[in-house]
Amino acid sequence: MDDAKKGIITEQMKAVAKLENVDEEFIRKSVAAGTIAIPNNVNRDVKPVGIGAGLRTKVNATIGTSTDVNDVDMEVEKAKIAMENKADTLMELSIGGDLDAIRRTILDVTDLPMGSVPVYQAATEAINKDGSAIYMDEDAMFKAIEKQAKDGVDFMAIHCSVNKETLRRLKRQGREGGLVSRGGAFISAWMVHNEVENPLYKNYDKVIEIAQEYDFCISLANGMRAGAIADSTDRAQIQELIILGELIDRAREAGVQTIVEGPGHIPLKEIPTNVMVQKKLCRGAPFYMLGPIVTDIAPAYDHIVSSIGAAQSAAAGADFICYVTPAEHLALPGPQDVKDGVIATRIGAYVGDMAKGIHNGELDLKMANARKKLNWEAQYAAAICPADARKIREAKPPEDPDTCTMCGNYCSIKIVNEWLDDASQDVFD
Amino acid sequence: MDDAKKGIITEQMKAVAKLENVDEEFIRKSVAAGTIAIPNNVNRDVKPVGIGAGLRTKVNATIGTSTDVNDVDMEVEKAKIAMENKADTLMELSIGGDLDAIRRTILDVTDLPMGSVPVYQAATEAINKDGSAIYMDEDAMFKAIEKQAKDGVDFMAIHCSVNKETLRRLKRQGREGGLVSRGGAFISAWMVHNEVENPLYKNYDKVIEIAQEYDFCISLANGMRAGAIADSTDRAQIQELIILGELIDRAREAGVQTIVEGPGHIPLKEIPTNVMVQKKLCRGAPFYMLGPIVTDIAPAYDHIVSSIGAAQSAAAGADFICYVTPAEHLALPGPQDVKDGVIATRIGAYVGDMAKGIHNGELDLKMANARKKLNWEAQYAAAICPADARKIREAKPPEDPDTCTMCGNYCSIKIVNEWLDDASQDVFD
Repeated sequence: MDDAKKGIITEQMKAVAKLENVDEEFIRKSVAAGTIAIPNNVNRDVKPVGIGAGLRTKVNATIGTSTDVNDVDMEVEKAKIAMENKADTLMELSIGGDLDAIRRTILDVTDLPMGSVPVYQAATEAINKDGSAIYMDEDAMFKAIEKQAKDGVDFMAIHCSVNKETLRRLKRQGREGGLVSRGGAFISAWMVHNEVENPLYKNYDKVIEIAQEYDFCISLANGMRAGAIADSTDRAQIQELIILGELIDRAREAGVQTIVEGPGHIPLKEIPTNVMVQKKLCRGAPFYMLGPIVTDIAPAYDHIVSSIGAAQSAAAGADFICYVTPAEHLALPGPQDVKDGVIATRIGAYVGDMAKGIHNGELDLKMANARKKLNWEAQYAAAICPADARKIREAKPPEDPDTCTMCGNYCSIKIVNEWLDDASQDVFD
Repeated sequence: MDDAKKGIITEQMKAVAKLENVDEEFIRKSVAAGTIAIPNNVNRDVKPVGIGAGLRTKVNATIGTSTDVNDVDMEVEKAKIAMENKADTLMELSIGGDLDAIRRTILDVTDLPMGSVPVYQAATEAINKDGSAIYMDEDAMFKAIEKQAKDGVDFMAIHCSVNKETLRRLKRQGREGGLVSRGGAFISAWMVHNEVENPLYKNYDKVIEIAQEYDFCISLANGMRAGAIADSTDRAQIQELIILGELIDRAREAGVQTIVEGPGHIPLKEIPTNVMVQKKLCRGAPFYMLGPIVTDIAPAYDHIVSSIGAAQSAAAGADFICYVTPAEHLALPGPQDVKDGVIATRIGAYVGDMAKGIHNGELDLKMANARKKLNWEAQYAAAICPADARKIREAKPPEDPDTCTMCGNYCSIKIVNEWLDDASQDVFD
């Protein structure tokens, strides 16, 4: 960001410009202004991924152990599946097992920008030692950030905006679904128990200093996000967003890149408002939507639910979408869940990108032309998941590769399409 | 419709009013005006299903054989799976095997309103006899309608609006993806080959007469619908919609119920325009969206693609959605595809209904409260597919049914939620 402010176009900016087919100077200006972030820790070499206004909407896949299911090999497999299915970034959010070892293993496996939530580590250590996150040491929160930064984490979700003001609004507002952000709950419970301000807010300058040192991107976390449709876009969330806006100003002054986390559970019609209010209060900072989940009633199908939310969010201007898997609200996702989640979210992002003019359906046109010619290989090539398209067709192959042998050369569809394409033919009177 | 015009509130209208929790007089007025249809052939007794403005968006599941895969037992299984998963209507669109026998079998199996596309039968007979649908007999088109009406079909997709004017606009417009409506292609090829007007347009009064006799609902078919994003909302489609509007006026005068079929393949941002122009040109007739499919690039995942389209369509005012399955564009759907298609479309319709104010997320609130209390049985009960939600959770059950044994009574989420719900506690200063 400092380079961009000085007018320098870095190799990363050039790479992003090329990938996105936009002007290098546009990237530089946007990075300088803070409307585009390119997360890349100084200690790591990752694929250049630009996140922000004017770029393709990016998709994040979250992996990580739970306290119950703690299998490093499965996490590696999930990371690989996310990469194979073209996630743009990974977040590693383990809370079970040897957190340092798992994080370093995944950092080795992936060349995608990787994110984390450092308060999970601080809280997990307090839980293991004293039985609860309310006993976290203030220093431990910053030590976790520093350790993970040193390891090379490229972007970190940090819960700086859960402060006294935010909690006051939460308390007065009330909640049908309670608080559901795990990091937000760690900080909130700690504050309520200890009756002091959030150290990550109070000592935000320290967070900025570490970010400067390792050049990671601060993903300002949304601790108040609704976990239920009934709680969407409430005063607690908007209060936190105001605080987030202020924190972004301070990070930008210090030359630190930021993105802002959003909800959560939002009904379809409130999505454009959520994007607009974030973009206004946070001066155009890249917006990272978690889903969103547009109805609470479809556990086992939340990847579809959030594909609807992703499409609408991207269309409205969101820049970055965290996937949701079919296991959401039910269990730790397995490898197949990761694949389903990445593909559903990529579909939503692609559809939304067409609506906001990032592309004009050039791939759709390729598919349409391939379909018209009954060219199956070209159809697979244009498909978001060629293998799955091929699998469905080849499981029940028609007798003739031309699909329908019903009418041979007298096929009505062929007759009409030939007539349509024949310039010498006119319409009869 | 005649009863409604005379001021009579029939048992069906009463049943629909009760199911939808709306006023009986509202239903009567809407049926009289043609903005709500209740498809029910005089020869059948079906569940009362109201389709139109002010009512819950309904979901259709299409089944039927192909020329390659022709297994009546599988079609019966598909019909049952559609019903189990709460489709509102069925369409039986077989083109392989003994069409009369299959139709009658499915009519016996289901108590849902059933639809058909009678020109498939006329065309299939011409193909079997003479090798192509271009040799169809004019009379055969009407005989198919009459035979299927007698059998009890409740709504029929009839391609009356593919006329000379429509074809002229199609020819001048051109198409990237060609014509993809099978019925539209049968009629268009027939017209181009024989160089005469579409009999279903020319003799539309005859269609109306048969509909009056059997009291089936005419689902005015969209022969020009785009089969590619590149062809969406083009002049051919809008020309046909103008003709459709005129045909609706004539049906309404004759006391015949109508619904209007829409596209097809439409990009997300064009959906509200499509709904608006249909509602205007067709004087508020119930709008039956086929999907829509909002990107061409995701074969194997078209149920997700059209769930996005369904949500946006229902939100914009569409009344009835035809499902799309994962097998779309690839193969004849099997039973699992039918289930996936119905559930994905129901999710989209539910999400859209919340946006247009048909419901206010009452079920979402039940789920949110059940989640807050970690009441798993209540969560399953509020889920769109309780069995699938249960399956995912029970495949990887946590050690303790309270999900997370990490912190016991010192769980941060519990601490915050107790503090939130405790009226005696205030925010510390």
